Amino acid sequence: MEAPGEAEGAARPDGRRAGLRCHHHVTEMLDLPFLPFCVLLGGLGFVCVAFVSAWCQHWRGGFALDGSAQMFNWHPVLMVTGMVVLYSAAALVYRLPATWRGPKLPWKVLHGSLALAAFTLAVLGLVAVFRFHNSHGTPNMYSLHSWLGLATILLFSCQWLAGFSAFLLPWAPAWLRAFYKPVHIFFGSTILMLSVASCVSGINEKLFFSLKNGTTDYKHLPAEAVFANMLGLLIILFGVLVLGALARPSWKRPDADSPDSCQPLLTAER
Amino acid sequence: MEAPGEAEGAARPDGRRAGLRCHHHVTEMLDLPFLPFCVLLGGLGFVCVAFVSAWCQHWRGGFALDGSAQMFNWHPVLMVTGMVVLYSAAALVYRLPATWRGPKLPWKVLHGSLALAAFTLAVLGLVAVFRFHNSHGTPNMYSLHSWLGLATILLFSCQWLAGFSAFLLPWAPAWLRAFYKPVHIFFGSTILMLSVASCVSGINEKLFFSLKNGTTDYKHLPAEAVFANMLGLLIILFGVLVLGALARPSWKRPDADSPDSCQPLLTAER
Repeated sequence: MEAPGEAEGAARPDGRRAGLRCHHHVTEMLDLPFLPFCVLLGGLGFVCVAFVSAWCQHWRGGFALDGSAQMFNWHPVLMVTGMVVLYSAAALVYRLPATWRGPKLPWKVLHGSLALAAFTLAVLGLVAVFRFHNSHGTPNMYSLHSWLGLATILLFSCQWLAGFSAFLLPWAPAWLRAFYKPVHIFFGSTILMLSVASCVSGINEKLFFSLKNGTTDYKHLPAEAVFANMLGLLIILFGVLVLGALARPSWKRPDADSPDSCQPLLTAER
Repeated sequence: MEAPGEAEGAARPDGRRAGLRCHHHVTEMLDLPFLPFCVLLGGLGFVCVAFVSAWCQHWRGGFALDGSAQMFNWHPVLMVTGMVVLYSAAALVYRLPATWRGPKLPWKVLHGSLALAAFTLAVLGLVAVFRFHNSHGTPNMYSLHSWLGLATILLFSCQWLAGFSAFLLPWAPAWLRAFYKPVHIFFGSTILMLSVASCVSGINEKLFFSLKNGTTDYKHLPAEAVFANMLGLLIILFGVLVLGALARPSWKRPDADSPDSCQPLLTAER
């Protein structure tokens, strides 16, 4: 939500100078270093993966590959690991100050590879839930969670293919790269938001399915429900912090919006 | 997700000039006017409110104030209208070019009033669901949807109070306004994301609750399920478009990040 700015007094030179000093002072106060924040994010991502694994292992019977409920358990673990944590790692690659200098190709390859790893885990996560449904005669793709989740993964596949074609293959014209770059950035954040919303609706749905009988009913808030609700809130916190880090101007590549973004890859890479 | 930039060729003056021309050309291509987009958003917001009202009226038995299931039906309608559509209208006030000139106080008052109206509807939406639960002996606040929804509204209440104290009351010091403004903007977008995620998980949960018996089971995807799933996707589309509009640099107030944001209200307003 846009906050009110107070710029109308700019005509007064004294006020302007005072404003500049004040602005710089405040900017410095807000200028957190990226790397410690990144370590915090890494820790929080690890906690999310540990929580979803512990939920499935401790309360949902562990893991298997036989189409049973234990096969389903791979679904939340793979989705949180792939579409939230690994995806975020891929998204944050260009926020590392080390990527701002020297040849860029290795970082592009790392960005694309992490995204491809995230996509692979997501597809395996889909396989787990489809095999579980099919072996139980349950229809696929009826809930809002499933519609949103599949739409997110389809969007991610388009995003990966378009990013690979435009930024890693050498034949995209410069104007197309410049045109597509802000679109790629916008959909990058959007896909993370959709992933988090999919996780929240999925955890909620799974708890209603699993916690049904009298003593452990979801509405009586047994330990499993508290634990999985906390998992949902941790995933949201992680997603919000990643989106905040991506949006933070001082953590963006200094050349992110420079006119030189039209340079073609083959002349630009050194 | 950050896309690769191609800035390494900046050392060549020829390439730089060509890059500048190309950049400006591409920027012009991408420069949609805000007002037509705003009309589109208004239409989409209206469709969201119409869909959620039609769902509750046509399939869930309409509206009442007696603690029955018809009282619950106010909950989704008030939440979508308040926390998504009205909230977004409040957030977009400063994207109207008319707000960039002349005295700012009326726009601040409009921004705060729309946000307060959104908050009021959200509180009434909470009253609807609490009264429904209490009159049926159902516990409150156990699902992840309810935890997330309440956290969103609590965050919104803090955001409104802090925004009112910092930007509308005259006694906040300039450094505090400058410090708080980016925080207010960040939480503004965050609260909208959380609202959308709450709506998605809530619609999903309500459909599992309501569509239970053999012929209309959610998994058989009756007309109501298709309609309400589409409502969920429309809310997500609306939220993503609003967040995109808020993030778009060319639609921000030209002075949004100017050093003059430290000017105090009483000297700045004319």
